[in-house]
Amino acid sequence: MLKLKSPADFIGKQGTGVISFGSGQPDLPPPREAFSGIDITRDLRYGLIQGELPLRQALSKEYPRSTPDNFVITNGASEALDLVFRAWGKGKILLPRPYYYSYLPLIQMAGMTPVFTDLVDGRIDIADFKRKVRGCRAVLINSPSNPTGRVESIETLKEIERITQQKGIHVVSDEVYKDLIYERENYPIQGDHVITINSFSKTYCMCGVRVGYLWTSDKKVVEDVCEMKTHTSMNTNLVGQDMALSTMRAPASYIEDQRKIWRERRDFIYKGLLDLGFDLWKPEGAFYVLPKCRNPRKFLTLLYEEYKVITYLGEWFGAPDRIRLSYALDVNKIEEGLGRIRQAMRRVRAV
Amino acid sequence: MLKLKSPADFIGKQGTGVISFGSGQPDLPPPREAFSGIDITRDLRYGLIQGELPLRQALSKEYPRSTPDNFVITNGASEALDLVFRAWGKGKILLPRPYYYSYLPLIQMAGMTPVFTDLVDGRIDIADFKRKVRGCRAVLINSPSNPTGRVESIETLKEIERITQQKGIHVVSDEVYKDLIYERENYPIQGDHVITINSFSKTYCMCGVRVGYLWTSDKKVVEDVCEMKTHTSMNTNLVGQDMALSTMRAPASYIEDQRKIWRERRDFIYKGLLDLGFDLWKPEGAFYVLPKCRNPRKFLTLLYEEYKVITYLGEWFGAPDRIRLSYALDVNKIEEGLGRIRQAMRRVRAV
Repeated sequence: MLKLKSPADFIGKQGTGVISFGSGQPDLPPPREAFSGIDITRDLRYGLIQGELPLRQALSKEYPRSTPDNFVITNGASEALDLVFRAWGKGKILLPRPYYYSYLPLIQMAGMTPVFTDLVDGRIDIADFKRKVRGCRAVLINSPSNPTGRVESIETLKEIERITQQKGIHVVSDEVYKDLIYERENYPIQGDHVITINSFSKTYCMCGVRVGYLWTSDKKVVEDVCEMKTHTSMNTNLVGQDMALSTMRAPASYIEDQRKIWRERRDFIYKGLLDLGFDLWKPEGAFYVLPKCRNPRKFLTLLYEEYKVITYLGEWFGAPDRIRLSYALDVNKIEEGLGRIRQAMRRVRAV
Repeated sequence: MLKLKSPADFIGKQGTGVISFGSGQPDLPPPREAFSGIDITRDLRYGLIQGELPLRQALSKEYPRSTPDNFVITNGASEALDLVFRAWGKGKILLPRPYYYSYLPLIQMAGMTPVFTDLVDGRIDIADFKRKVRGCRAVLINSPSNPTGRVESIETLKEIERITQQKGIHVVSDEVYKDLIYERENYPIQGDHVITINSFSKTYCMCGVRVGYLWTSDKKVVEDVCEMKTHTSMNTNLVGQDMALSTMRAPASYIEDQRKIWRERRDFIYKGLLDLGFDLWKPEGAFYVLPKCRNPRKFLTLLYEEYKVITYLGEWFGAPDRIRLSYALDVNKIEEGLGRIRQAMRRVRAV
C-alpha cells in the first residue's frame, strides 16, 4: 500500500514493466570526458573544504567577474541549499509555489519561515512578488523550474534582481537546469546579493556522483558555509570533483545534443497530454510537466497499482490539484506510458 | 597573523619545511584493494539514499545480528553525526570533555544542548557520568578518543550501556578509530538504544573519499535520517561507496601492519614529550596526544611562526590548558618536530 507521503514512496519500486515518470534525473549517459584521465589512485587525504582549486578555477571562467574564492563545491545542489539556509538559520524566505519538494523541508529544518508567491500561468506574478517580499531575508528562485518546467522571462529575472538589490534581500537562484532551456540561453541573476546554486548532475547526467556548488560574491556566505561544512561533511568527495572538472572539457555539442533530445521528448509528452485532455503549462526547460488532475491520489494510485506507471503527486510540490511527470525517459516509453494513462482515465476521472 | 579560532586557520598552510602535528588523518596510502575492480563508468544515476546494498550487506557481516537495514551510508562520519542530531533537534546530550572539536557546533546547530562530564585522567568518571546523564536524551561517546587518544575500559563501556538502556537514553558511539587501538580489540557498545558511527577514512586511509556510516537497530532513527538525507544531500557518492566496499577485501594483515606503524609512532612521541617535561596521557588508540601546556596560545604561535611547526589549541577541544598533536606523520618528521619544540621551549615556558 502506497503511503503517498513523498517521492520516497517510489524509491526501489522501478521493477519490470514499470514506466516511471517519477524521478527527476536524466536517463542518458554522462559525456565520455567524465571518465577520461580520472586517476582514482590519486591523493585521497582530506581536500579543501571549499572544493578543489582546479575545479573552482575552471568554474570561475564560466561566471563573469569571478575568482575561485566565489565558489564552494558541495555534495550536490542539495547540500549547497541546506548549508546556505542553515547559515542564516532564521528569517522569512519568499519562494514561488509550486516549488521543488525539498525546498520546504530544507527551509523549515534550517529554522527559516517560507512565504509563498503563487505562480500565475506557471510564472512569477511580479506584483504579488513585490508585496510578499517585504520583510523577507531572502528569496528563492528556480528557473527553469522543477516541477513546472517553466522558464521566467529575462524581464522578470531582471526585475527580481533590481527589487531585491534595492531592499538588500539575498536571492538564492537555483539554476541546476540552466543548460536545459529549450527557447533561449540561461540568464543568470547577477549581483552581490545573489547566491547561485548549481550542479553537474542534470547537465552531465551524473546525479549519483553528487557534485554541485554555489557561486556568490558575498564573502560572508562563503565563509559561513565553509565553516559549517567543516563540521557537517568536510570536503566533497575528491574523485567526484575530478570527474566534474573533466566533464567541463566536453564539447558544446554535447549539451546541444542533449537539448535536442529533451526538446523532442517535451514536444511528445506535451502534445500527448493535451490530446488526452489535460490542462498543463508548456515546459520551456528542465524535464517536467505538471498537468491539472482531478482526484490526483486516486488516479496516481490506480496508475501505479493497475498500470505500473509512476507519477508524483502535485501536493508534494505545493500543487494539490496537479500531478507531476518527469519525461526523463525514451520517447517509446513515454508513448507506452501515455497509452496506459489513457486506459486509466477510463476508470478514474482525471480531467 | 593567526586568528586561532579553529583548526581551519591552518588549512592550506602546510608549506615547505612545515612539520604538521595538526590535521588528524593518516599519511599512509589506502590498501591496494581500494582501487581494484572499481569501474567509474558504472551507472551514475541516483543511488539509494540509505546507501548501496552490496556495501550495507558487507557491513552487516561485521556487526552482530545485523541486516543491511541497520545501516545508512553517509558523507563521512561527520554527516552521520549531523543527521542524527538534527533528527532529534532538541534535548540535552551528555559528552565527555575534552571532545572532538566538531561535536559542539554539530550539537548546537541541531538545536541540542551539550552537557559535559569532565574526564579524570583522560577517562570517563562513571560517578559523574551517572549524575549528569539524568534528563539527557542521548550521550555521545568517542573511544578511542580524538583528542585524548584514550580508550575507555570495557567495564566502563558496559556500565554506560547498562545505565543508558535502563533509562531509555540513546548512545551515539563514535568509533571511527575502532581499528586503531594498541592494547586490545574494540568493544562496540551494544543495544537497541545504540547508534554507532563509523567510517572508512581512518582505518583505510581515505579521508577525502568521504564514506562513513551509522549502524543502529532503531528503525525510527534510520527512517528519520534517510528522510532528511533525501533533502540535504541525497545518496552518498557512488564511486566512493564502491571503493569502500572494495577496501573490505583487504587482508586483516593490512590493519595489523597499520597498527604496528601507529604504535611505533605513539611510543616515539609519547617518550619524546615526556623527555621534554610535558605532562600527558599515554595514548591507547587513535593518533593524538594532548599534553598540558602553559601559555598555549603564545607557545603555539611561536611554534608556527618561528619554527614552522603546526599544533592545535586544546581550547578547540574543550581543554584550554593543553595543546593537541596528531602523530600522523613519519617518525623522522616527529623527531624533527620534537627538536623544534625543544628549541621553542627555551623561549616560551611551555611546561
